[in-house]
Amino acid sequence: MAVHLTPPNPSDLHAIAGVRIGVTQAAIRKAGRKDLTVVLIDEGASVSGVFTQNRFCAAPVQVCREHLDSGQGIRAMVVNTGNANAGTGEEGLKRARETCVALAEALHISPNQVLPFSTGVIMEPLPHERIIAGMPAAIAAAGKAGKAGKAGSAQQWVDAAEGIMTTDTVPKAASTRVKIGDATVSVTGISKGAGMIRPNMATMLGYVATDACVAPVLMKELSLALAEGSFNRITVDGDTSTNDSFVVIATNKAQHAPITSLQSAEGHALLQAMLQVARQLAQAIVRDGEGATKFITIRVEGGRHSAECRQVAYAIAHSPLVKTAFFASDPNLGRILAAVGYAGIADLDQTGIDLYLDDVHVAIQGGRHPEYREEDGQRVMKQSEITVRVALGRGTASDTVWTCDLSHDYVSINADYRS
Amino acid sequence: MAVHLTPPNPSDLHAIAGVRIGVTQAAIRKAGRKDLTVVLIDEGASVSGVFTQNRFCAAPVQVCREHLDSGQGIRAMVVNTGNANAGTGEEGLKRARETCVALAEALHISPNQVLPFSTGVIMEPLPHERIIAGMPAAIAAAGKAGKAGKAGSAQQWVDAAEGIMTTDTVPKAASTRVKIGDATVSVTGISKGAGMIRPNMATMLGYVATDACVAPVLMKELSLALAEGSFNRITVDGDTSTNDSFVVIATNKAQHAPITSLQSAEGHALLQAMLQVARQLAQAIVRDGEGATKFITIRVEGGRHSAECRQVAYAIAHSPLVKTAFFASDPNLGRILAAVGYAGIADLDQTGIDLYLDDVHVAIQGGRHPEYREEDGQRVMKQSEITVRVALGRGTASDTVWTCDLSHDYVSINADYRS
Repeated sequence: MAVHLTPPNPSDLHAIAGVRIGVTQAAIRKAGRKDLTVVLIDEGASVSGVFTQNRFCAAPVQVCREHLDSGQGIRAMVVNTGNANAGTGEEGLKRARETCVALAEALHISPNQVLPFSTGVIMEPLPHERIIAGMPAAIAAAGKAGKAGKAGSAQQWVDAAEGIMTTDTVPKAASTRVKIGDATVSVTGISKGAGMIRPNMATMLGYVATDACVAPVLMKELSLALAEGSFNRITVDGDTSTNDSFVVIATNKAQHAPITSLQSAEGHALLQAMLQVARQLAQAIVRDGEGATKFITIRVEGGRHSAECRQVAYAIAHSPLVKTAFFASDPNLGRILAAVGYAGIADLDQTGIDLYLDDVHVAIQGGRHPEYREEDGQRVMKQSEITVRVALGRGTASDTVWTCDLSHDYVSINADYRS
Repeated sequence: MAVHLTPPNPSDLHAIAGVRIGVTQAAIRKAGRKDLTVVLIDEGASVSGVFTQNRFCAAPVQVCREHLDSGQGIRAMVVNTGNANAGTGEEGLKRARETCVALAEALHISPNQVLPFSTGVIMEPLPHERIIAGMPAAIAAAGKAGKAGKAGSAQQWVDAAEGIMTTDTVPKAASTRVKIGDATVSVTGISKGAGMIRPNMATMLGYVATDACVAPVLMKELSLALAEGSFNRITVDGDTSTNDSFVVIATNKAQHAPITSLQSAEGHALLQAMLQVARQLAQAIVRDGEGATKFITIRVEGGRHSAECRQVAYAIAHSPLVKTAFFASDPNLGRILAAVGYAGIADLDQTGIDLYLDDVHVAIQGGRHPEYREEDGQRVMKQSEITVRVALGRGTASDTVWTCDLSHDYVSINADYRS
């Protein structure tokens, strides 16, 4: 029941020079599923990652951080579904490391050059021997490394989008191209996740790669800017996974001078192209949100700074009462005003607040707009895509988050998940 | 479907000397409902209140704050259901004030001595003329003031518990007695609310009265301590109402020396008795929570201070994933650990965390307990009352909150509410 979300078509995706992907069935939790993905990255790429802030982070997240910090160039990633390797203590860390060692040996690189990702049930031992046993087939599927600039195929990206799915109903991929200097570079990414956390099937995963040339020192800033404008602006249920990971890869294969600043014309162009892809991937997670029937954009304007706008937007986006009202197509808009009120802005003046549903002016200066008619609100609430706009009337900052409604199916999916 | 909650019986409630209550049908939103309650308080009582922190607070909350600040002794309260007088701007304030003026005139007191409360739909004009028209009947029902020490009846408290209900399924009242010096004092209270916010039918309301003698300067501290130990420790859906109000009344009728400190033996005894009543009233709101099928106590221990324990407890209590797991009786306990992890304690060490479900030791040092068996977790999860205990392993502080599960009925109630 995903909201306006269709499976990716290989003809819409651009392969990325320097990235090859192989997917196989390793029977990690159940047989007959694509559940193991390896991503092989040519030497010389720049890689950065943004990870869950959950203090109960999973073993693979801890290992990713270590390996990125080691400063050795990342050359491979391994992603398994079926088991999150979270809540597994020291033994979980050991198994995540053994997975990296096995892939490193097969590829003749250092274990520090491998990033591991796991998604699936929490608090169960990772069957790392099955992951290791599946590696040769996955590596074979990725194909041999070609000459410089040789890319894996677009079909490999579609396979990977399927290979990292857990309870997602639709595979998620996005792609674009942008001109940098005289070169045309490609940006392609995949994501998975159908809640901010997939309960047992924990995790949001996102990967965006480009063949553009990006100075390694810029990668952290680039990945943070991308996460802030995309995956850090979505919520399904407010739960933050133990495994959330977002990785940005620049293979540096394109023929243009390396980008050293996001403020330069080239840096800005690349950032916007990558943001477009990352945002599409993040929004796809909301569109495929557990039980989602509507895609809601919440824009808060007129704040003193964007942080308070975001705070208000999340209060609205997390309110079960607001979310059930969207599900019911009920213009029960006092619920939105109440959420604005409890968002935690201590000196907020309610008489400065305006509320719009798409083009309908619902509340003015904190009270019902005299010309607002319930049927106008009703008309907008019945749409499957809705924009809520709140004007705080205290500044010029703004921010936007994306969310979905809360339906009977959300409860069913999460109540019945393990049965 | 309230969890272990039965309607109050007048024989279990103690009338409070100096408090008389009258309830009537004023057809505020619909005819044929008890929707107007007046509480008459003898001269010389001490009154204090704790109100919603929502910046979008309703007109009556603003007027209550003004009148309590005026320093004139509070002599009456008026509570209407059917309309929250929230999101109503200047006109709403005017109507709340006119309600106070009308009751003050009837009772020959100052309008500043009246506290108004409204609960019901948001963003619709308060029909204050119907409230005013209903006042004579409500005052008559309260009965004439008796001689000093003459109380209204226990039946009046039952009537009031019914009179302030909106979508509550069970009226909520509690009562106890305690010895202070040579006197036996009574404590009686009522509450309403079936979510932290009742969407359109906004609001948690709580009133606790005693005939004990409490120095006026102590009232603010007393009401805060009571709110902190009861109404501020419950959550149904994390939404905070525009109208939440909690009022504490000491009529000073009992024959004992006034209490001037909560640390004295008498102060401590009274606080504990009032806490017992306030906690019972607060827990009744959770037991009657929208769609609730289970009553959950969440106790977090071993924190550096109680604030961080509370923060973790609320993260668990607000997690839709944890709440749906309780609804499904599914011991999907990684969800609880994940909520602990994202509660916002930056330096939390996951290897210090233990988790218990009632007597079952589920997780030890951040991982699954080697002797934990799923059937033991299952056994506890099937109960209608469950205690979740989390030990953080970093200090000696603790705190407790109470919540309920998230069921299909929650979505139905809130999605279908206005239809």
